Amino acid sequence: MHSLSFRHIPGRLTHRFTSFGEAVPFRRIAMSESPACFQPGKNLPFYRFDNTGPFGQSPRFLPPEPRKRPPVGSPTQLASAKAGIITPEMAFVAVRENAMRSQLRKDLERITRPRVRAIFRPLLAQRLLTAEDIRREVATRRLVIPANFCHPEALPLGIGKSISTKVNANIGTSVHRANSQEELRKLRQAILAGADTVMDLSTGKAVQETRNRILRHSPVPIGTVPIYEALDRVNGDPLALSWRVFQEVLLDQAQAGVDYMTIHAGLLRRHLPYTQTRLTGIVSRGGGILATWMHHHHKQNFLYEHFDAILDIAQQYDITLSLGDGLRPGCIYDSNDQAQLAELKTLGRLHALAGQKDVQVMIEGPGHVPFHKIAANQEWENLWCQEAPFYTLGPLVTDVGAGYDHITGAMGAMAMASYGTAMLCYVTPKEHLGLPDANDVLEGMIAFKIAAHAADLAKGFPQAYIHDHMMSLARFEFRWKDQFVLSYHPLRAQEFYGKEIRGTGAEKTHFCSMCGPKFCPMKLTQELFQHP
Amino acid sequence: MHSLSFRHIPGRLTHRFTSFGEAVPFRRIAMSESPACFQPGKNLPFYRFDNTGPFGQSPRFLPPEPRKRPPVGSPTQLASAKAGIITPEMAFVAVRENAMRSQLRKDLERITRPRVRAIFRPLLAQRLLTAEDIRREVATRRLVIPANFCHPEALPLGIGKSISTKVNANIGTSVHRANSQEELRKLRQAILAGADTVMDLSTGKAVQETRNRILRHSPVPIGTVPIYEALDRVNGDPLALSWRVFQEVLLDQAQAGVDYMTIHAGLLRRHLPYTQTRLTGIVSRGGGILATWMHHHHKQNFLYEHFDAILDIAQQYDITLSLGDGLRPGCIYDSNDQAQLAELKTLGRLHALAGQKDVQVMIEGPGHVPFHKIAANQEWENLWCQEAPFYTLGPLVTDVGAGYDHITGAMGAMAMASYGTAMLCYVTPKEHLGLPDANDVLEGMIAFKIAAHAADLAKGFPQAYIHDHMMSLARFEFRWKDQFVLSYHPLRAQEFYGKEIRGTGAEKTHFCSMCGPKFCPMKLTQELFQHP
Repeated sequence: MHSLSFRHIPGRLTHRFTSFGEAVPFRRIAMSESPACFQPGKNLPFYRFDNTGPFGQSPRFLPPEPRKRPPVGSPTQLASAKAGIITPEMAFVAVRENAMRSQLRKDLERITRPRVRAIFRPLLAQRLLTAEDIRREVATRRLVIPANFCHPEALPLGIGKSISTKVNANIGTSVHRANSQEELRKLRQAILAGADTVMDLSTGKAVQETRNRILRHSPVPIGTVPIYEALDRVNGDPLALSWRVFQEVLLDQAQAGVDYMTIHAGLLRRHLPYTQTRLTGIVSRGGGILATWMHHHHKQNFLYEHFDAILDIAQQYDITLSLGDGLRPGCIYDSNDQAQLAELKTLGRLHALAGQKDVQVMIEGPGHVPFHKIAANQEWENLWCQEAPFYTLGPLVTDVGAGYDHITGAMGAMAMASYGTAMLCYVTPKEHLGLPDANDVLEGMIAFKIAAHAADLAKGFPQAYIHDHMMSLARFEFRWKDQFVLSYHPLRAQEFYGKEIRGTGAEKTHFCSMCGPKFCPMKLTQELFQHP
Repeated sequence: MHSLSFRHIPGRLTHRFTSFGEAVPFRRIAMSESPACFQPGKNLPFYRFDNTGPFGQSPRFLPPEPRKRPPVGSPTQLASAKAGIITPEMAFVAVRENAMRSQLRKDLERITRPRVRAIFRPLLAQRLLTAEDIRREVATRRLVIPANFCHPEALPLGIGKSISTKVNANIGTSVHRANSQEELRKLRQAILAGADTVMDLSTGKAVQETRNRILRHSPVPIGTVPIYEALDRVNGDPLALSWRVFQEVLLDQAQAGVDYMTIHAGLLRRHLPYTQTRLTGIVSRGGGILATWMHHHHKQNFLYEHFDAILDIAQQYDITLSLGDGLRPGCIYDSNDQAQLAELKTLGRLHALAGQKDVQVMIEGPGHVPFHKIAANQEWENLWCQEAPFYTLGPLVTDVGAGYDHITGAMGAMAMASYGTAMLCYVTPKEHLGLPDANDVLEGMIAFKIAAHAADLAKGFPQAYIHDHMMSLARFEFRWKDQFVLSYHPLRAQEFYGKEIRGTGAEKTHFCSMCGPKFCPMKLTQELFQHP
């Protein structure tokens, strides 16, 4: 399987400007003309936000050009939103989400084919989101824009149920493999495959160096789980952890520019007995560390005790807190159990506290959940956490998918996001078995980009429908190249096609090897329509 | 990626006898003992129906041993069921579905670990299906047993919503590639990966030879789409088709032993105008052929006109009719549209007619459907087709997954089957791009076995929960080998694991390379539980 390189990113770069004069990068993916045997003529191009920064333009790992950011201590996105102020980031997010539909409206005027007009006009007629819409969503805390004042390399990104579903890729070294160059390769694969955010979960050697390289090279917001580095600083002994060590890590990571951080402050001492009847106990790394600490010291979780101090740091740098689910279920047996729900309720209370200090918050969710029990998770989150952006790890719909957990995870993620979840954390084929390499990152990302896209259809977002309809129209008209560039891995699609059709004029055939020329039903239908 | 060989099928063969004295083959997959650091002691084995016949026992393509079957013209399964008679096939299906739980009940008596008893006893206590239950389901037409009197090589299989979800693999030559040895390789991959049925969709040269080789080597029921061969016999000209040609094909295939056949008798002339406003028209091969024929000859579909004669043949051989959806949607835009629903209603009427002649019927379903519109498909089918086993192709939840359509298909299939669909037709990564090879068959099968399994959890079947809980318990206790053999591709899981852990005692480590030894949350929890 080929990995993705910058040459595989289809389309040419174009821009659209925000009201602040900032350029929002898009890819314009041109479609071929339809041949004479159909309604001949031009087709609409497709536009896609360009998240790739320098990775999409050059084979080298260039750092992205930094944006202008206000100094540390400025009002957070949430504070501005509450004050009725539209920030450059909100304006960026509004343009990023759907502004290219206004460009498509213009493009449609030059299209004469009645079919194309009939299919796309209703979708393009739908109202565009404005910067004011985004501000209102931030103010009501249904949407976050994770943008640390110290991470000017990242392009603003919105996460919330009213806009397209986002996908996060986890990368990071482990004790067994620590190589920051390898992590940059994973970062690149993740971003070229369309990652909206990346979490650096590095542990072991060179954690700071790895994170700094990732931050300075990343055009997307970066998240971390600070408790990992705190544990490294006390040589891996959970009992030696303290608020002081954690606070140092928090400040270091804040200054380095981390945009959002997983904080397991909702895991309380009184929740621990609930885990005793579980089949797989605690499967969150952060949860396991804190449970051990609480258990041995007979003390309350220091992240809960010092949550106010955490909020102060988060407010200073405008770090978005991703309230971690240390008690997320690690298997079907433990799903939707008392431990999970008790912690989720606590996260709801912490969410309310954060709002008082204008700190943006996401809520993390499961884990392993069978399909019929997924919807309840979003309903509880809506109820207890006031529709704060839900950020789930899958969920995996079964425990038995070892080697294929990107698929079990993408299945649950598709359903979860359809019910309103805002961001999906990918799962790779190596889940439960080992640390993913760059190829696993790619396969995991594509499975989850598909899940997010499928959920966007269920959520009713017109941009997703435009993508599907363009693909299907290209398919119906045997425009093979257009099908390749509209897919998530153009090279793979092209190879799959080309492997089967040899010496037949390849991309001009009006059939594929699946049915062959005589049996292609779409060809038969076309003839039907042409000679009524 | 390694393909599967008979050596990768874990467990040893065992049998359980039906009341007719017939041996139902199972695999008994032993689990290791739990180490002393947990509750030490023996674990329950896992049992899985063995569908592999000779493929699971030898590297050569041996034909399976034939079963005893009554002569052509005997009462069909449906006729027997209506008469209150339990056939050997019904007894076989009852044992196949869940009889190994009674074996597990005995095994549990020898297990001393309280955890294991607590987890599995409630699942084992649930009532087992009896042959009489199966008879009643067949009589009410909610379950079919596709078993042509002339296909003694196949083991009886039930398809219905009250029993585990089944998966079909499509194989078959096309004009571009015709090699019956290659098709046997695909058959083998499909069966080793757990295919419950296989459809031979061959077109082009050597159709009969290929089908006969498949039938004589297949331990699973075989389906076909007879209109393909009919078209071949008139040199690929749809207009030259006639009832007479079709009838000959039907008889030939019936005599050869085909267990179920897709018959597009529900596609009527009056439905054709509904397809004119579609984005991708007709995407079913059979549908396209028949639409062309009707359109040019200004005649009604000859399969509809001669449905009575088709029923007579089906009754003679006890062929299960799979009423084809020639108007299934081929893209998101066309999903759940008038064309699709009008045909489904017609299929319901044909289903009623078939019942009068004691012919078993399945109903075929979409296609491409976005997630939020999937549930309605099962509801309509329940309403109009009286809960006849629904047999769907995916559905794919988006059109843009080229190169990854085994994933988009498995996502929709998981949801569809959770709502009650009885059998899923797999989709391979090559869908929309080319004819699948043996490796694509394997990847498509595993994605859909996972979808079917996840749906079985949603349907509440205890056997599925037993599988998940065994996997998770093995995971919690770091019994790596047990995890491999409980997964769908043991070799792949083992390789993914082994690639990352080198020289560390491999399968005895109490962690994986994902978190490393210090950070494994499950290890931390275990220590927590051991020193309360």
